[in-house]
Order: sequence, then structure tokens, then C-alpha cells
Amino acid sequence: MTRAECQRMLTNNRFAHLGCIAKDRPYVVPIRYVFRDGAFYSFSLPGKKIDCLRANPHACVQLETLVTDEEWQSVLLEGLFQELPDDEKWHGQHMQAWSLLQEHGNWWEPGAYKPDAGATESADMHPVFYSIQIENLSGRTATNA
Amino acid sequence: MTRAECQRMLTNNRFAHLGCIAKDRPYVVPIRYVFRDGAFYSFSLPGKKIDCLRANPHACVQLETLVTDEEWQSVLLEGLFQELPDDEKWHGQHMQAWSLLQEHGNWWEPGAYKPDAGATESADMHPVFYSIQIENLSGRTATNA
Repeated sequence: MTRAECQRMLTNNRFAHLGCIAKDRPYVVPIRYVFRDGAFYSFSLPGKKIDCLRANPHACVQLETLVTDEEWQSVLLEGLFQELPDDEKWHGQHMQAWSLLQEHGNWWEPGAYKPDAGATESADMHPVFYSIQIENLSGRTATNA
Repeated sequence: MTRAECQRMLTNNRFAHLGCIAKDRPYVVPIRYVFRDGAFYSFSLPGKKIDCLRANPHACVQLETLVTDEEWQSVLLEGLFQELPDDEKWHGQHMQAWSLLQEHGNWWEPGAYKPDAGATESADMHPVFYSIQIENLSGRTATNA
């Protein structure tokens, strides 16, 4: 698949699997994401996945569309985890991620977070927004032709 | 989820995502598998996934069933890759894996391999059968209740 085809598939989907490394062991979780204008955004409540990515930022995201067992497309995005906190440096990217991700409503994990809503929530219920800085993007396709 | 619930979910499904480590980077691929009597079997043509697992046998398998965004189950199996070649030591396990996997026909990658069919196929078209020796099995569930 060309880079443009990989990007189109990322743009047209919202669900994928993220791989990261947890103390030298592989770890895989399903995630919701948004891919827009070449940038990959996702979010998560704090937990093992975020702990792993903070310790080792190497991540991969794999998604597939299956038509039949013989007709499928699979895309692999490899890159670096970049946390997008709501601080001076990252505020713009944080708002961009929040804005794109909240368009798709009530996902996998509670999405009730609103920026600037004050410090009423405890830190462990505060979603972590992040992007993955793409180092490599590739795709494979199989057709029944 | 209890261990029995995790095993039931593995038994009732055939499609999951496997994570492994490729030269200190995470790597994720979709796989077809069979889980029977506590044993996890899969197969693959030679390639990056098999190269990685031979170099570092730590693997994880994650599968989910999604009813809605708020109602899902996710199981994570962590363990060690064990190749099952058709040799003196592993012949029985090799045949067991082949027998279970071929029940489900023409999967993802060509399944036309037949044991003892002779050496007419080149090694790079010869599927690699393997199991994952379970070290840890866990699951999470979310309900809309």
C-alpha cells in the first residue's frame, strides 16, 4: 500500500490495536483514535498502558479491515508516544486532540472530561491525551482476484 | 474476569492480536488461532513475526468482543512462544496444532499445508506452527448495567 492509502485507511477508521513494551514484555490494547491531517491522536485514563508509554515511548498501532479471510487490508504505524498535557507548551495540541476525539462521543472509556473544568476531578480519572509521532507507516493488502 | 471466563472467551473465538518485540520495538499483528483444553495454537508463514518470536519468545495475545462502546470484554494472554516443528520431539504437538487449525479452513494465510506431504515446498512457504505457553491470563469486562 502507498503512504496515501495507509493514511486514508487511518483517517476512515477509529478503532485499532496499540502495542507497547511493558518491562521488556509486549503489551497490546484496543484503542479508539482519530487520524487527521497526518497526525495521530488518542487518549486514555491513567493505567498500565500510559505507564508503559511514559517509560518507553516506542509504540505501534495496527488496524485492519477484513472483507473475507482472503480479502483484507492491514496498516502498521510505528512511532513515538508524545503526551499532550494541558500546559503552556502543549495546550494547542491538547485542545486539538480533545476537540477531534470528543466529536465521536462516548467511547470505550468515559469521555466526560472537559478542558478547563477545574481541578475537581482526581488525577487518576483525568484522561491522558497523546499523539504518536510517526516514524514508519506501512500497509499490506490481499485481494481475492 | 475469572480464569475460566477468560478461557471460555479464548475457546469461543478464533481471531486476536498478537504482540511481540522486534529489536526493542513493539510489533502487533492480527492472527487466527485455536484455544483447546488450555492450550493456545496458531501458525504463520515465515516472516517478521516468526523472526521476532524466535529472537525473543515473550508474546501476548489480546482479544476483545465489543457489544457496544460501553459493553465489552477483553482478554490478555501473556506467555512464551514455543515453535512446534515436525520433528521427533514435537511431532505430536505439531499434528495436534495442524489438526485443530485446519478444521477452520482457508484462513488469513494459505492453509494448504499437509504434514508428511514431502519436501516439494520451499521452506519459506512452509507454515510455522506454534503454541504460546501461558504465564498469565487476565480479562476485563464492562457492562452497561
